[in-house]
Amino acid sequence: MEYRRVKDQESYDDLSQKDVESLSGRSLSSVNATATGLSSAGGAKGKSNWKLKSVVTLALTLLTSSQAILIVWSKRAGKYEYSVTTANFSVEALKCLLSLAALFRTWNRHGVTDDNRLTTSFDEVSVYPIPAILYMVKNLLQYYIFAYVDAPAYQILKNLNIISTGVLYRIILKKKLSAIQWAAFILLCAGCTTAQLNPSSDHVLQTPIQGWMMAIVMALLSGFAGVYTEAIIKKRPSRNINVQNFWLYIFGVIFNLVAICVQDYDAVMNKGFFHGYSFITVLMILNHALSGIAVSMVMKYADNIVKVYSTSVAMLLTAVVSVFLFNFHLSLAFFLGSTVVSVSVYLHSVGKLQPQK
Amino acid sequence: MEYRRVKDQESYDDLSQKDVESLSGRSLSSVNATATGLSSAGGAKGKSNWKLKSVVTLALTLLTSSQAILIVWSKRAGKYEYSVTTANFSVEALKCLLSLAALFRTWNRHGVTDDNRLTTSFDEVSVYPIPAILYMVKNLLQYYIFAYVDAPAYQILKNLNIISTGVLYRIILKKKLSAIQWAAFILLCAGCTTAQLNPSSDHVLQTPIQGWMMAIVMALLSGFAGVYTEAIIKKRPSRNINVQNFWLYIFGVIFNLVAICVQDYDAVMNKGFFHGYSFITVLMILNHALSGIAVSMVMKYADNIVKVYSTSVAMLLTAVVSVFLFNFHLSLAFFLGSTVVSVSVYLHSVGKLQPQK
Repeated sequence: MEYRRVKDQESYDDLSQKDVESLSGRSLSSVNATATGLSSAGGAKGKSNWKLKSVVTLALTLLTSSQAILIVWSKRAGKYEYSVTTANFSVEALKCLLSLAALFRTWNRHGVTDDNRLTTSFDEVSVYPIPAILYMVKNLLQYYIFAYVDAPAYQILKNLNIISTGVLYRIILKKKLSAIQWAAFILLCAGCTTAQLNPSSDHVLQTPIQGWMMAIVMALLSGFAGVYTEAIIKKRPSRNINVQNFWLYIFGVIFNLVAICVQDYDAVMNKGFFHGYSFITVLMILNHALSGIAVSMVMKYADNIVKVYSTSVAMLLTAVVSVFLFNFHLSLAFFLGSTVVSVSVYLHSVGKLQPQK
Repeated sequence: MEYRRVKDQESYDDLSQKDVESLSGRSLSSVNATATGLSSAGGAKGKSNWKLKSVVTLALTLLTSSQAILIVWSKRAGKYEYSVTTANFSVEALKCLLSLAALFRTWNRHGVTDDNRLTTSFDEVSVYPIPAILYMVKNLLQYYIFAYVDAPAYQILKNLNIISTGVLYRIILKKKLSAIQWAAFILLCAGCTTAQLNPSSDHVLQTPIQGWMMAIVMALLSGFAGVYTEAIIKKRPSRNINVQNFWLYIFGVIFNLVAICVQDYDAVMNKGFFHGYSFITVLMILNHALSGIAVSMVMKYADNIVKVYSTSVAMLLTAVVSVFLFNFHLSLAFFLGSTVVSVSVYLHSVGKLQPQK
């Protein structure tokens, strides 16, 4: 039961990590307007780029925060009544639809151009399934790691993602971080872990070597998928982000269709596709779709490092909001971890101002 | 019983915090040789100053580490059999004697000069009792704070010293720290606290407002005493450090004599001054005397910031050594705290390289 719950939560977390995008109707319309404005203005960098980056980062932070709160909320109602695979499928499909809707709007306003046409070459589309495959392998590994690691320890080990993202960002995208930014990144990982400490956290030190290896491999897969998606999206800077997202998403739809067949075929056939869906389920699907959009926006207009900071700050915000919503208890470890994360955010921005080495 | 033990340990901690100095016979003889060399060479700054700073910092770190281990060691033997006030008195007296011994050596080698003569003016000596009075008030407050704060929470609150030292260092000595060094200082405080976290640490969040106020006042007193001592010692840079120490120490001797009369008069009269002293007691007194010397050296040739870093690193070293000596258990919190402290030490040195604002 406990395992099932954790697994479900993980599936949701993974959803939000998937690097996909589309165009939303309401909350992000201003972002998209700015985005469209930016792409039509061509190389209008500098201040407007900074503004866009801030808006998408803020959107990602707020969406991720409310995401975790929705999960806690649905948990309070008891166990999940619906098939998680169908929810994942719905999110992917919704994002596909939103991408198409945004594209139609763009075509109506600006006409079809080379940058926003949906048709593509094999050369462009061939790399899009790779992030989806990486996430699938990671989710598969998740079934086995719980043989060696318990749930609270896994929550701690997940913070290795932060370090793997930083290292792979450096290696694959060949972008340099200053020494102070590296220090800030180590602090971010230590601070997030500290904030999550609880009396049972020390279990993680008894993790066998197999558990550590699998946790490291999973962190690398997740980091690699994130960095790879950024590389794909940024490879064609002038290409419309909604087209890029459509192709990213279509593979998400296919992979999740396979997952439904493998995992929940009987349940869907007997009880129906949307069995057990509640209002909160629909809210969660909507939130995940919008979070996916925000992640893609961050990938296009900022980078993986900004994404990692954004989701870390969201983790802290979630805990603070949970104090009021669910009478959560904030520990001393949480305050200390939050302090370290805050200093890390500060150092990251100060580190940027230094001359490039 | 628990209170008494904590109180005793605090007394020892305070001893090591007192800013006093003299000249040791063995382990620090090289330091002193360099120190003498430096003062005779006049303004021979730069490389030799850096070397001297490193040596005194290393000495302070190692002495403070072994100090805490000796305390744990003596604790394992059970409760303290001797009067703590007589031990404090012995430390002060020993440091006085070592200062005089070093002075005699200097007089024999270089003759009596204006800088190394023991006689002094009222103007010079009048400020020397101030640190001793500040520590006395702080130790007095310690009796009352335990009405509001339990022992583990007090260990956590003691880390406020780090922040108060930084702030007072800035205000009183008017020395600027760079923005990165301030960030490093906040991290040092958060990291030290994290490393000391244990399941009962959350008690500190229930500390009543009186407890917080007293903890803050105590941190300010302790920080003020440290910064004030640095100011006194550095006010006359060419004055021989052993003369400065002798005058600092003589007030320590007087204050501790008063403490013996107030607290342990009956025990000393009935059982003798050195009742209950063991080999470890003597080792501890020797260690405290040498630590006192090291602190003074750091005040003369480095500063309070270096002292705070040195004692923080010593705290971590102590825990690591204790794993082997006493089968201590290192928690995940300790690893995280140590990581944050290490990054802080790195940032402090990187921060220095930046241009002064």
